[in-house]
Amino acid sequence: MTALCPPDRVDRAQQAAGRAGLDALLLTPGADLRYLTGYAAMPLERLTCLVVPAAGRPFLVVPLLERPAALASPAADLGIEIIGWAETDDPYRLLADLLRRQLGRATDRVGMADRMWLEQALRLRDALGAGVGLAGEVMRGLRVRKSPAEIEALARAAAAIDRVHARIGEWLRPGRTEAQVGRDIAEAIVGEGHVRADFVIVGSGPNGASPHHELSDRVIAPGDPVVVDIGGTTAEGYCSDSTRTYVVGGTPDPELVRCYAVLAQAQEAACDAIAPGVSCQHIDAVARQVITDAGYGAQFVHRTGHGIGLESHEDPYLVAGNEDPLEPGMTFSVEPGIYLAGRHGARIEDICVCTEDGGRRLNLTSRELSVLG
Amino acid sequence: MTALCPPDRVDRAQQAAGRAGLDALLLTPGADLRYLTGYAAMPLERLTCLVVPAAGRPFLVVPLLERPAALASPAADLGIEIIGWAETDDPYRLLADLLRRQLGRATDRVGMADRMWLEQALRLRDALGAGVGLAGEVMRGLRVRKSPAEIEALARAAAAIDRVHARIGEWLRPGRTEAQVGRDIAEAIVGEGHVRADFVIVGSGPNGASPHHELSDRVIAPGDPVVVDIGGTTAEGYCSDSTRTYVVGGTPDPELVRCYAVLAQAQEAACDAIAPGVSCQHIDAVARQVITDAGYGAQFVHRTGHGIGLESHEDPYLVAGNEDPLEPGMTFSVEPGIYLAGRHGARIEDICVCTEDGGRRLNLTSRELSVLG
Repeated sequence: MTALCPPDRVDRAQQAAGRAGLDALLLTPGADLRYLTGYAAMPLERLTCLVVPAAGRPFLVVPLLERPAALASPAADLGIEIIGWAETDDPYRLLADLLRRQLGRATDRVGMADRMWLEQALRLRDALGAGVGLAGEVMRGLRVRKSPAEIEALARAAAAIDRVHARIGEWLRPGRTEAQVGRDIAEAIVGEGHVRADFVIVGSGPNGASPHHELSDRVIAPGDPVVVDIGGTTAEGYCSDSTRTYVVGGTPDPELVRCYAVLAQAQEAACDAIAPGVSCQHIDAVARQVITDAGYGAQFVHRTGHGIGLESHEDPYLVAGNEDPLEPGMTFSVEPGIYLAGRHGARIEDICVCTEDGGRRLNLTSRELSVLG
Repeated sequence: MTALCPPDRVDRAQQAAGRAGLDALLLTPGADLRYLTGYAAMPLERLTCLVVPAAGRPFLVVPLLERPAALASPAADLGIEIIGWAETDDPYRLLADLLRRQLGRATDRVGMADRMWLEQALRLRDALGAGVGLAGEVMRGLRVRKSPAEIEALARAAAAIDRVHARIGEWLRPGRTEAQVGRDIAEAIVGEGHVRADFVIVGSGPNGASPHHELSDRVIAPGDPVVVDIGGTTAEGYCSDSTRTYVVGGTPDPELVRCYAVLAQAQEAACDAIAPGVSCQHIDAVARQVITDAGYGAQFVHRTGHGIGLESHEDPYLVAGNEDPLEPGMTFSVEPGIYLAGRHGARIEDICVCTEDGGRRLNLTSRELSVLG
C-alpha cells in the first residue's frame, strides 16, 4: 500500500457503515472500491464485489479469471479474503451466503455503491433479501477531504492536462474540423500521462455556446473562438479537467473580449473566495455576482464547479442550495462560463484545493484569451 | 438518421415494452439510449433519461446545458420532445410528473436500463412510486441481432483493431515494461480509428496465465510469450476486441508451441461450428472438447465468448448453460485460451458474425503464434 491508499480506510468504512445502521457496504468496481483497496477493477458483467461488513472480516468476491489480478492488486495486502467464482456459479447467492455466515443472521440492510449497475443491484437485493441504501452516504464522508498524497496525485493529473493545453496550437488550426482536432487531443491526453481520455470538448464558433458540446464536423474558421474542455484519468486513478478558450488567429470579436474579461474576473474572484468554512454555494454566488453585474447572468447557465478525485465529478458541488462548508483537502473545479447562443461561448476552468490558508490552483497554464497562430 | 440507427427502433421498443407489461422504458446514457436514438450522451451525475412509454409520445429529459447537444443529436430528428431542466430543478420529479400526465394515471411498473446507476434508479423509483424491472429484458430482443449496417460498423471497428495488432512489433520489445507497451498501444488504439481505448491487456511470461491481467511493471524478456487483448470504441459507437499471442524473439518454449497448436485448432473448430440454430453453449462445448482432449481442459478457465456491439460485452454469451440458439446477425467473440499458472498463457480471439451460411470472422490478422523481431 502506498501513501495514496493507506490501509486504515477499510476500518474507517466499517465504522462509518455501523454508525449508518448498515450491515455491510457492497462495492462493485468503481471509485469506492479503488479508494478503499487500491484495486482498479474493470466494471464487467461478471460480478466483482467487495463486502465490507460493519463488523467482521471484509471479503472480495471476484470471477475466477479476475482472481490473479485481484491477488496482484493492493487489496491482497490488506488481508481481505479474495473468493473466486467459476463461470457457471451463481455469485449473487455465493455472496449472500458468505455475508449471512459472517453476520450470524439474515442481512437486514446494506449500502450499495451509488454507481452500481441496477442489474447487479437487483440481483444482490434478491439474493440477500435485504433493504437497499446507498453506500455513498458513508463513502462521501471518507472521500471528500483528500490527503496530501491524493492532492499531489491530482496535481500530477493537472500537470498532465496542462501539457496538453500547452500543445493545443499544434492541432487547433483554421480549416480543420472539431472532430479532427478532438482526435489529436484525445491521443495527446494519453500520450501526456493519462491512461485514458475521459472527455474532449472542442466547441468552435457558435458551438462554444453549448457548454457540453463535444465534437462535430464543423470546420474551424479563422478568428473563431474555441472552448477546449478536456480531461483524463492517470494510472494512479486521479482525474484531470481543465478548460481554456482560444481564438484561432485574427482579431477576436469585441463582444467576446468583453465577455472574457468579465469571466476572468469572475473565475479569479471565486478562487480567491475559497477558504475553510465558506459554503459551497457561496463560491458559486461570488462568480455569478461578477457575471450578473456585467449583464451576462442569464448566459451563465451552469453551476460553478464540481468535486474531483477518483471520479471526474463527485462531491462537493459548487451550486446554489449546497450549504455544506468547504474543508481543507476538498478539491473541485472552478469553471464559470458565458454562453451567447448562436454566437460564441467562453469558459475558464481550474482544479482548486481548499487549504487552511485559502484556495490553491492546480492548473497553471495561462488564463488569458490565447490568440493562436 | 443513418442506416446504422433507423427511425423505427423507438416504435419497436414501445411495442415490446407493452408486451412485457411495462408502462415505460427509462433509459439513461448508455448503449440502449444510443441504440434507439443515436444519441451518445455521456453518463453524468445530472440526469439524462429517455422515457419510452408503451403508448404515447417518447420524451427525453436532459440537463439544460446538454440540451444543445441533444438537439444536435439524431434524437431530435425522431420527433422526440427534448425537455431541459435547470441546475436547481428536481429532474426526477419533473420526469415522474410528465410520465403521469402522459399515462393519465399513476405509473405502475417501469423497465430501467440494466446499467443505470443505482443512485439514479432509486431516485426515479421514489419519484414514480412504481415497480422496477430491467429494460434489458425488452432491449435485448431488439439489439441482439445486428443489421447489415451494424455488422459493417463492427467490421470497421475490427479493421481498426487489426491495424493496431499489425503494428505490435513497433512497441512489444524485450527490455520494455508491460505498462510502457500498454501506453503505446492505448495511444495507437485512438490513433488507428477509435475514439477511446476500452482495455489493454499485455500479459507477458507468467502474467499471460491471468486471462484479464492488465499492465504491470514487469520487464519483458527475450523469448517471453505475450498475450495482447485489446479493444476500443469507434466514433460510430461500435466496439472492437481481438487477442493475439506473440513471442518476443528467440525460440518459443516447446510446451507453449504445443498448447498453441491445440488452441488454434479449438478456435477454428468453434468458428466452423457457428450456424443459425446451433446453441450458444454448443460453440463453447466445441472449443472446450478440443482443449480437453489434449489434456488442457482445466486450464481453459473461462467461457468461449461474449456478444459485442454498442457494448464490449453483451448478449449472447457463449457459455455452458446458455441454450439460446444462434441467429443470423448475432455478433460475438470466439476466444478460447489455455493458461498454465506460473508459466504462460495463450489466447486467440476474433469477433465473428453468425450468417445464414455459417460463421464469418471480422478480425483478419494472422492467427499463427507470431515470433517478433
